[in-house]
Parts: sequence; C-alpha cells; structure tokens
Amino acid sequence: MHIAERMQGVNGSAIRELFKLLGDPEIISFGGGNPAKECFPKEDIEKITDELLRDKSDVLLQYGATEGYLPLRKAYIEKILPDLGLTAELENVLALTGSMQGLDLICKVVVNPGDVVLVEEPSFLGALQTFNIAQAKLVPVPLHTDGIHVDELEALVREYRPVMFYTIPTFQNPTSWVSGIEARKAIARLAAEYDMIVIEDDPYASLRFSGEKLPTIKSFDTSGNVILMSSFSKTISPGMRVALCCGNAELIRKMTIAKQSADTHSPNLNQAIIAEYLNRDLLPEHIAEISKVYAHSASVMIEAMEEYFPDWVEYEKPIGGLFIWCTLPEGWDASELFKKAVARKVAFVPGVSFFTTPGKGNNTFRLNFSAEPEERIRRGIRTLGDLLKETAEEMK
Amino acid sequence: MHIAERMQGVNGSAIRELFKLLGDPEIISFGGGNPAKECFPKEDIEKITDELLRDKSDVLLQYGATEGYLPLRKAYIEKILPDLGLTAELENVLALTGSMQGLDLICKVVVNPGDVVLVEEPSFLGALQTFNIAQAKLVPVPLHTDGIHVDELEALVREYRPVMFYTIPTFQNPTSWVSGIEARKAIARLAAEYDMIVIEDDPYASLRFSGEKLPTIKSFDTSGNVILMSSFSKTISPGMRVALCCGNAELIRKMTIAKQSADTHSPNLNQAIIAEYLNRDLLPEHIAEISKVYAHSASVMIEAMEEYFPDWVEYEKPIGGLFIWCTLPEGWDASELFKKAVARKVAFVPGVSFFTTPGKGNNTFRLNFSAEPEERIRRGIRTLGDLLKETAEEMK
Repeated sequence: MHIAERMQGVNGSAIRELFKLLGDPEIISFGGGNPAKECFPKEDIEKITDELLRDKSDVLLQYGATEGYLPLRKAYIEKILPDLGLTAELENVLALTGSMQGLDLICKVVVNPGDVVLVEEPSFLGALQTFNIAQAKLVPVPLHTDGIHVDELEALVREYRPVMFYTIPTFQNPTSWVSGIEARKAIARLAAEYDMIVIEDDPYASLRFSGEKLPTIKSFDTSGNVILMSSFSKTISPGMRVALCCGNAELIRKMTIAKQSADTHSPNLNQAIIAEYLNRDLLPEHIAEISKVYAHSASVMIEAMEEYFPDWVEYEKPIGGLFIWCTLPEGWDASELFKKAVARKVAFVPGVSFFTTPGKGNNTFRLNFSAEPEERIRRGIRTLGDLLKETAEEMK
Repeated sequence: MHIAERMQGVNGSAIRELFKLLGDPEIISFGGGNPAKECFPKEDIEKITDELLRDKSDVLLQYGATEGYLPLRKAYIEKILPDLGLTAELENVLALTGSMQGLDLICKVVVNPGDVVLVEEPSFLGALQTFNIAQAKLVPVPLHTDGIHVDELEALVREYRPVMFYTIPTFQNPTSWVSGIEARKAIARLAAEYDMIVIEDDPYASLRFSGEKLPTIKSFDTSGNVILMSSFSKTISPGMRVALCCGNAELIRKMTIAKQSADTHSPNLNQAIIAEYLNRDLLPEHIAEISKVYAHSASVMIEAMEEYFPDWVEYEKPIGGLFIWCTLPEGWDASELFKKAVARKVAFVPGVSFFTTPGKGNNTFRLNFSAEPEERIRRGIRTLGDLLKETAEEMK
C-alpha cells in the first residue's frame, strides 16, 4: 500500500494509546487529561438536550453551516470573549469539532511542508503530532516555570522566521506553567513584527485555583495574527467535541473552506447544547464549582507527593489547570518507570512525548489530578513513591 | 499573512455557499442534498437520546476512543455490513465525523502532493475539493448513464498509475447513475492489480426506488485496497455527522492516527444515538419508508419536468438517490441560468463545479428532489421551465 510521506514515522499519540488502559478500572490513571465525571453538568445537559430535540430537531438533524451553529457563535461572542478582553464579529469566529480540529485547519491554511513552526518545549503532544503530519519543521522554544522568556523567543523568531508559534500561555500542557503579562504583550508584538501566526490555545485558563486572571495574548493583538482557540472540553464535556476559535476574518474564511473538506460542519446538536448552556448563564457558576474540586484534588496530590515522593523529584504546586509536571534526576528514564508503574496499576504520561528535541525529557513525566477520586490519588501517589525509591535503590 | 500552497485557488464549495440561500424560506431549493425534514426519525432519536443521557452520560460526556464508540463499530459490523455482503473485525472499522472526514483522512494517509487520483467526471464537488486541498493531480474518468466503462478506466489506470480511485457506484452524486456488477468486479480487480486504493463512497445505495440491489465493490475486494465509506447522513440525519468506513487494518490504523490529529475522536453522544438506532433494528423499516417518500418526490419532479421543461433538456428518471442530472444543449451556461433562477426564487447547482476538466460541464446542472414538498417541486420546476424557454428565445 502506498503511504504518503507525511505519515512516515508518525506513530500515533502516546496518550491515545494510554487511553486504552483506562478501560481497566483497576488502573489508577494519572495519564490523560480527563475531567472528573462528577464535574460534568449532567442534569443541565439532559434538560437542555431534551428541550432542543423537542423544539428544534428539524434544524438540528439537518445539514448545518460550516461556520458553525449561529446561536453558538453568537453566544461565544457575547458570553465568552468579553471576559477575555475581546470583541469579535461573526466573521472572526469559527466553530470546531474540538480545538484539535482548529490546529489541523490552521496547518492546512498556513503551513507548507518544511515551514518552521515554533513550539514550547515541552508542549501538548497532540499538537506536536498535528504539526508533524503537516510536515512542519518544529523548532522548540524553552519553557520555564515562569513561562516563555521573550529574549529566547525573539532570537528564535529572528533566526528561523517561523510561519507560526503555538503556545498555551495559561496552565500549559504538560507543565501547568503560566506566561506572564509582559511575555503576552511581547508575543503579540512579535506576531505583528514578523508576520507570524500565533496560536493561543486556551483550554485551561478558566480552571484557576488562585492568583489573578491574566489577559489573553489575543487581547494585545494589533496585527490580527493571533488566533485564540477556546475549548469546552475541560469545562463542560470533552465527549461533545465543541470548541471555537477567534481570529482575523481572512484566516477564519480560509479555515472555513478547509473545514468544508474536513467534516463539512460540526454536529449541530452538540453545538446547540453548548450554546444553550452558555445562554442560560450556567457556565460561570459551574466553572467556580469545578475549579474548587480540581484545586482540592491538586492539593491532595501535592500533599501525597510531599509525603511519599523522594525529595529529589522536582515539581511545582499548580495554581490552575489539570497537571503536575515532574522532573527526575538526569539519567532516569520515565518510560521504563511507566512500565513498572502500569504493572502496579498506576499510569501517567512519560514526558518524552512532549519534547521535540530528540533524547530530551526522558527524565520527566506528567501527572493528571482531575480524573481520580481522593483516595485513589493518595494510593496511586504512594505506589509511585515506593516505585521511585525502589528504583533509586536498584540504580545505586 | 502566509497562506499555504494547498489553499491557493481553492475557493470553497459552491454548495456550501449555496446553502446560505436556503436561509431564505421563499427560495425553492433544488440545490444541496438535504433529506426532507419529515424523513428524520425525530421521535426515536428523542427517546434514544433521553435514555442515553440518563443511563450513560458518564461515558458519553467523557473523552472517547479515536477508533469510535465501541457499540457503534459493533453495530456497523453486525447490522450494516452483512447486508452489503461483508464481514469485518473491529480493526477494519473506523467511526468518522461524516464521510467527508474519511476522504480527508485517506488523503492524509495515501496522497503525496502531485499524486494522481482518478475521479468520476462529473463527481461530488466536496470530494473534489478535498482532493484538491490534498494537492492531488485529479484525472477524470468519464461517467456514463450506465456508470463506469471498464476499458476507459483501465486505460487511465495504466497511463497514470494513480494512487487512488474515488467512485460512488450507486446513485452517484451528481448524476444518480449506477455502475453495474461487471464494472464493480473489474474495479476490485484493478485495485489489486495496480495496488490502487479504491474509495467506494456509498451514502445513497439504500435509497433505491426500483430494481435489484447490487453488491458493493468492497464485496469483490481481494487485495484489501477497497475502502467502503458508509454514511447515515441521507438515511438518519446529516446534522449528526456520523459515518463509518471499512477497510484493511493497516489503512484503518493509519487513518486512526491521522484522526487523532484531526478531531481526537468523533462526538460520543452522536455515535451512541446511531448505535442505539441500529441496535433497535429501526433502520430497515425507516429506510423503506423514506425511500417511498423520495421515490414519490422523484416522480413528482420528473412529471413536472416532462410537463414544463423544453424537450431538448436531457435527463434520466432516477431509480434511487436524491438527484436528477440535467444536460442542456452545447453553448448553454447553467451558471448564468442559476443567477436568473435565484432571482425567481429557485435554486439548483450549476454542473460545472462537479467537473475536473476546465470548461466542461457548463451546460449541466443538478436538481435535488428530496428537500422540498410536492407543491413547491411543481412550482419550482415550472419556474425553471419558463426560464429555460425564455432564455432559449433570447439566445435565438
């Protein structure tokens, strides 16, 4: 069988593979980025869906517009964007079958094979795979506990003249680190100065446990080169696959054409459910509730890590998002550790998949704290702590 | 803004643009390929959805598998494929966010820029756009009222060594023509002999008004190079965006990796609704009912055409599907006619968008008979008939 060049060496997402482990209820999973099932607004979704199918099924079961279900696009403009310091017209807004689709469409519109795309290192492995399939040349920008360092970014922009920079500025995946306000302003400035598209991927920002909300990069955008991706996967439901993006009208128009050829349009019912959820003003209170739940889960995990992990494991206490990023001493192999952990019924994501530079990140791993109940978080962390100590003994 | 080469000269789907006209309820639309809203199984979908959200929301609102919702894949294997003369394992089956996504994924897996893809001429314009964005070199295979002529196809395969052939063998879009059993066998043979992927796109076959059901090309597949795309858009609901494909395990595996980077997975709820609909054995009776409705609509349109159209308009009476394909004498421009028709509140699709060869098909257009009620079909056809006669007078 003839296989296109872009798929050579693309082996699929480590997380999607890992996901299959979650089928085993005995496995305590700190892999994935799954919301807690207790955090789904089930009753509201049930009620809304029931009403929608009763009142609007003629429209919802029919073909819809590629641009998206109009009430959803309006609700995004009216209920979501103002809180992010943004105003937009309909021509700036496209509904997506999950944010991942947005990355795929942007790649189709912007990236020729061999074009340079800057990515944070480490970064979301799903995005890296999308850029690899687009045959982009990925150039990593080092990420620090205080986010992007502008001097480093600007030097890389000057050297490589990238077509695009992909960033998750708030509660980044996999690190939960945050880029500060000066970095955000500078990223918007670089987007304008170097005519570089900036993808601001923003699925976690509303899951904040402490500290002040930061303005989006998009809110500093003067050139129209910044595109904001907004997902409801972490706040309402990932299974719905509803996201939207906000960008300049030309880019959105081209992405819409690419979307015609990707899935014609996103499913109507799902978009309508989210639109109604937003229009009933249910989201702010729901986010406040689940942020409290996740803040508590994060504390439980951190306390367990303080108790059970050896003190040479490095990590930061997260102030938002879904993840804790761990770094082991040089020479450790988290992929080996992963195999042993799964044998003891605990799963996490070895960090190497989040790196672009070959051989980097072997000593890192990502823990997710949102998907498991308190008792299993403690038990899982204790198991990992024991494993770390035993492995250290063996390595002596 | 940097725009990738693949998007240069891609102007978007004529039908998707036309779709916006449908917002005007005064327009009688023979464009699109919309099912009649009376043909949606609304009550069943409402009931099923209600039960699903009550019983399974923990699973349905969570992330799902890229391969698809397991009960849907099983229902496809057990309830759909046997009627098509096919057996399959799970590894042969991938759920899709509409068949269009299948085309996009196959292109990602199989097509390098410049690779030759054979397409029927005329063919589904959405597919043509997908292949164009994939930067395939499209080579047209002439389509006839009796479908594909094997000698013509084989000569083109020999000459161009295509990586792929895209065919809608039953009630083709836009023509409603059917390729016979010998052509189907030959296409499967050519797929094997020339290691060529054949996409058998099959959304219309179950909407048959008369005659005997034909076996799928896939049922003659010995090489595994034929992939079948099965959509529920025309039989249950297009707004749900649920389709599946059946192909060899390696191709499905690669398409699954490409899908990870396209939309992570298709929305769970929609897949579960279709799975339940299939598992409750509701589809066969529903298809029997709507086929009757569409057969009647087709008759109404044909009768009106016989009454109101000048006798120099060529068309065939359809025995299934959703379309009637019309050819005007050489020198006519259906795009000009379209503008005049819209001014008189009737829409159709000018045929030129379905052609690959530049300058071909200007004198053709496609009528859809499924979306409008009887009275509006008659009125719209009479308006078109008047317009054709008046325009002929002006051209004298």
